[in-house]
Amino acid sequence: MAGDTFESWKIQCLNKCDFSKKGSVDDDISHIVAFINSHEQYFTTSSCSGRIILFDGAWDCQVQKRNCSWLFVTHQKCQSEDVLTSLEKSVGDSSLKFEPFVLHIQCKKLEDAQLLHTVAVNSGFRNSGITVGKKGKIIMAVRSTHCLEVPVSHRGTVLITDQYLDFLVRVSNQKMEENLKRIERFYECLQTALQPQEQKCFLKEAADKKPIYRRRRKRAQVDSVTDCCQSVNDHNENSEEETVCDLLFL
Amino acid sequence: MAGDTFESWKIQCLNKCDFSKKGSVDDDISHIVAFINSHEQYFTTSSCSGRIILFDGAWDCQVQKRNCSWLFVTHQKCQSEDVLTSLEKSVGDSSLKFEPFVLHIQCKKLEDAQLLHTVAVNSGFRNSGITVGKKGKIIMAVRSTHCLEVPVSHRGTVLITDQYLDFLVRVSNQKMEENLKRIERFYECLQTALQPQEQKCFLKEAADKKPIYRRRRKRAQVDSVTDCCQSVNDHNENSEEETVCDLLFL
Repeated sequence: MAGDTFESWKIQCLNKCDFSKKGSVDDDISHIVAFINSHEQYFTTSSCSGRIILFDGAWDCQVQKRNCSWLFVTHQKCQSEDVLTSLEKSVGDSSLKFEPFVLHIQCKKLEDAQLLHTVAVNSGFRNSGITVGKKGKIIMAVRSTHCLEVPVSHRGTVLITDQYLDFLVRVSNQKMEENLKRIERFYECLQTALQPQEQKCFLKEAADKKPIYRRRRKRAQVDSVTDCCQSVNDHNENSEEETVCDLLFL
Repeated sequence: MAGDTFESWKIQCLNKCDFSKKGSVDDDISHIVAFINSHEQYFTTSSCSGRIILFDGAWDCQVQKRNCSWLFVTHQKCQSEDVLTSLEKSVGDSSLKFEPFVLHIQCKKLEDAQLLHTVAVNSGFRNSGITVGKKGKIIMAVRSTHCLEVPVSHRGTVLITDQYLDFLVRVSNQKMEENLKRIERFYECLQTALQPQEQKCFLKEAADKKPIYRRRRKRAQVDSVTDCCQSVNDHNENSEEETVCDLLFL
């Protein structure tokens, strides 16, 4: 019955029109979305390949995203000239932001979500997590910790120099590149995980090899000796990875 | 048996020493951590009340957090003078960052995690999610979308003016204030949800009243009409909230 419900949700979701302005999946992830939707136990409910945006809003927009308008949006690398031209249209408080890849996948069973979650965190998407709905709808959200958010104007007055904006765009483009690498890492890991014969032993395999975040975690422990944001048991960033470790190594 | 395992995990976790430099739970959340740990079905594994940090690192540190050292960390509001003094010590690429409240809670059953997840997203922590370990360890991570990350030096050279740094510190302090409001909202919601007689009907109550993020979502739909980062079905930000809606309203 749960299966029937999932099947009907999947059919309904994949057959319905995309009412977005864009009207299609972002190019850089269309192969991943198609691959996931080709598996009976999964379907994607929303996605964004990653983007560089300039949003403009009221004074408190930096704190709570409200009354914001979007001056510039791209899903590719961009030129600082284009951002500068858009910035000149700011009438409130605007921020330049990099938002990484995000993908929401509805899963038939909790084990299906666990498998995707392992793939996601093992590919560097450490803020990924599962949501279980009251009626059994299971969603796995692929999320990254990888952000940039820089206030660039206040009440319509630009706060930064052209040179600094140029630097910010370079950093944003770098993050976009790294984001694409993680997306491809996710896709490769996904292909391995979803090979039928591989699925059962994937978690063990993932546990046997040292995943990327484990290496990063070791470096973080060595390098951030002066970081004292530690509570209960562990630093929140390490513990994000420890949560991952729970999944992979318990 | 699962219960026994959870109990032993909880005893082991709560009895072990806090090896962190800080050695204790952050003041602003100690009441929440104590409240959660007083319930047999939960215990916290890590937490941070939120912080303003200045980290310094190699060129690629903006992209991948590695080889970073921390020049400044506070869990309270701060003065721009203190950040400026720390910034002068930068030898690499440094960024000023606001990191919001994060809390990891191990839960006895999936339903216990679902309840906390509802509380978290209903209090504004929209990036919260559940991780289920291979051996049944269930962790609910309370996470916010509420960040700030601003590159402020490159190869030891400060990129911004003192006035702009002052503005950034004001924005960071504002985010710290908003973060504390959300923490208190989370605590109030948690107290209601964990009253024994309330637990069973909490999800229904949550569904009946309009939660904060629903109102924000409506504004977002009205205000961000020019935002075209839409794929498969929905914009990633709305869909984060739609994921929440799955939990609350299905």
